[in-house]
Amino acid sequence: MAKIVVLGAGMVGRAMAMDLAHKHQVTVADISEENLKRLLGKPDIITRKADLSKKANIQELIKDCELVVNAVPGFMGYKTTEAVIEMGKNIVDISFFPENGLELEQLAKEKGVIAVIDCGVAPGMGNVILGHHNAVMEVESYECYVGGLPFCRTLPFQYKAPFSPIDVIEEYIRPARYVRNKQIITIPALTEPELMDFAEVGTLQAFNTDGLRSLLFTMDIPDMIEKTMRYPGHIDYMKMLRAGGFFSEEEIEVKGKLIKPIDLTAQLLIDKWKLGETEPEFTVMRIKVCGMEQGEKVCWQYDLFDRYDKVTGISSMARTTGYSATSAVELVLNGDYNRVGISPPEFIGAVPGCLEKMLAYQKERGVIYHISRSL
Amino acid sequence: MAKIVVLGAGMVGRAMAMDLAHKHQVTVADISEENLKRLLGKPDIITRKADLSKKANIQELIKDCELVVNAVPGFMGYKTTEAVIEMGKNIVDISFFPENGLELEQLAKEKGVIAVIDCGVAPGMGNVILGHHNAVMEVESYECYVGGLPFCRTLPFQYKAPFSPIDVIEEYIRPARYVRNKQIITIPALTEPELMDFAEVGTLQAFNTDGLRSLLFTMDIPDMIEKTMRYPGHIDYMKMLRAGGFFSEEEIEVKGKLIKPIDLTAQLLIDKWKLGETEPEFTVMRIKVCGMEQGEKVCWQYDLFDRYDKVTGISSMARTTGYSATSAVELVLNGDYNRVGISPPEFIGAVPGCLEKMLAYQKERGVIYHISRSL
Repeated sequence: MAKIVVLGAGMVGRAMAMDLAHKHQVTVADISEENLKRLLGKPDIITRKADLSKKANIQELIKDCELVVNAVPGFMGYKTTEAVIEMGKNIVDISFFPENGLELEQLAKEKGVIAVIDCGVAPGMGNVILGHHNAVMEVESYECYVGGLPFCRTLPFQYKAPFSPIDVIEEYIRPARYVRNKQIITIPALTEPELMDFAEVGTLQAFNTDGLRSLLFTMDIPDMIEKTMRYPGHIDYMKMLRAGGFFSEEEIEVKGKLIKPIDLTAQLLIDKWKLGETEPEFTVMRIKVCGMEQGEKVCWQYDLFDRYDKVTGISSMARTTGYSATSAVELVLNGDYNRVGISPPEFIGAVPGCLEKMLAYQKERGVIYHISRSL
Repeated sequence: MAKIVVLGAGMVGRAMAMDLAHKHQVTVADISEENLKRLLGKPDIITRKADLSKKANIQELIKDCELVVNAVPGFMGYKTTEAVIEMGKNIVDISFFPENGLELEQLAKEKGVIAVIDCGVAPGMGNVILGHHNAVMEVESYECYVGGLPFCRTLPFQYKAPFSPIDVIEEYIRPARYVRNKQIITIPALTEPELMDFAEVGTLQAFNTDGLRSLLFTMDIPDMIEKTMRYPGHIDYMKMLRAGGFFSEEEIEVKGKLIKPIDLTAQLLIDKWKLGETEPEFTVMRIKVCGMEQGEKVCWQYDLFDRYDKVTGISSMARTTGYSATSAVELVLNGDYNRVGISPPEFIGAVPGCLEKMLAYQKERGVIYHISRSL
């Protein structure tokens, strides 16, 4: 039983707090009373209203705890992480901040802090899996296909998400960085569509997005890609919007007012893409790691298909992201993972036994990776 | 040789002025010097800069002429037409104003004016053709399929036009009014897509738009439709934009600024849909009039396929619209059509010989309708 502070009581933050509270003493902080209210009636969880953009507030909140879970929005994630490390507290972060976390390596070392970043499902579990195999075989290629989608497919978009449209659009704009033939290359997003069949939902369409993040720099593997999946047809419309200028970040004048088209687009899509509180959705992920293992050419495949949990009302997005992070929390608390410094999840995977423990932890919660090995 | 004033020196106005100047004394007026400049070097045409939103300017311009051709933008067309009728001048109008022209019937009668409105290609020639057959047979159905498109098909829109995107979007929003089983019904625009093959350009996609205008009220025919044609795929994107709210005329707040999504959309598409000055485009139209003629069930079909004229630099849009109007001008000047009052083009068609003369006039200019009759 440890004292843990969860920063951020959004959908994933709440799911993690409830999970950790089964065993630990958990405090959750958020500026939104709305978010905190949803944790009422969970007697094991202490809620604290706090403005987490202020370093002093964070440091006051966490001063007595053993570990911090960072689930604030991405734009404030780096500063929050820095504030936690300054206090010498171990941290597991799923804020997915855009800055380079490795810049905090020096600080984390000085403070003796174990800081795991990007520790969700993707990025997150893909990194752990690749880190695991990379330590014991000569990996030649890594592929990660991932998507979070509603079961209900409403045209024209066939898409809904529990987060802001602007974050999704960002993925559709930002060029994808891949490794091909040992070179980092850059390809426009939404390109190279391919159809893939899944037993649970039929055919999905995968396409290029920029998702490799730390793997681009920590791994020395000839070929690495990550692709996002949507229902077929979705990206045609997104390409149209992009080609039509609707994703443009340059201000244009419209009837005398300066406006960025992307801001209007995001505003319009807030309603259209809003995932209902209890709307069934799923997470699908397929990871393939191929290479030479003990003289044999092998491919390891990990398949995840996880659904919204009707009983708890917890979305699959929150389950798969949140339990990846809480499984890493256990590793840190138990001393199974103890590298001081900033750790992207592939570092955890490289430690013998860690992947297995994370998978077992998640399996207990119904998040199940099916593993197959082929020659 | 008559004195004619053409109001508006846009693309169609200029084409009509040049056509009429072969035989008549033509004055063209416009507020845009840019537009008027393009008529320099045509010694038979007098150009006059004038603000045509002012009635006094119009009436001064036209006081000595025999006939006026109205080619101002639609939003000012009704007032211009009224000003011309007040002066007792005959008029052929292709401004396609949204108001109900028949409200000027009383004024036109008082002033003894022959006023032909909506006299382009569509509306225009379709009405003339239907009026013609309706006078001599029992018409059971009327179909008009029409499109103006660039030869060059660039994704995602595969569309360009010499007029403002907002006018096109209007067609995609406004519900289509049709006659089915003698009832006027209303159907959303962009619906009931059908593929049609054309020898010159392959497959096009026709869909519902509101184009019957006066025919809804002047004709007593059980079934009447008009459909617009685009390259296949175009309307899927347009439906997506409509469903996504991008055509909405309701203001929304975007980063503190109130804005109508349609205004931003139209602004973005101005560049994307801009037809280049010398960019080859075509007009395609297929009209079918079916019914009982002399005891037989027959269908008359009119096929038009007209191209941009490289030699003169006159677009097909201007040729087909403009020469429809100038062929009606000849009928009025020659006394072939002399009904005092407001005449939609179907009234002209009903007068024996008029359709034939209009077709012959246009044929001389290379705008050729292929006519077939089937049992």
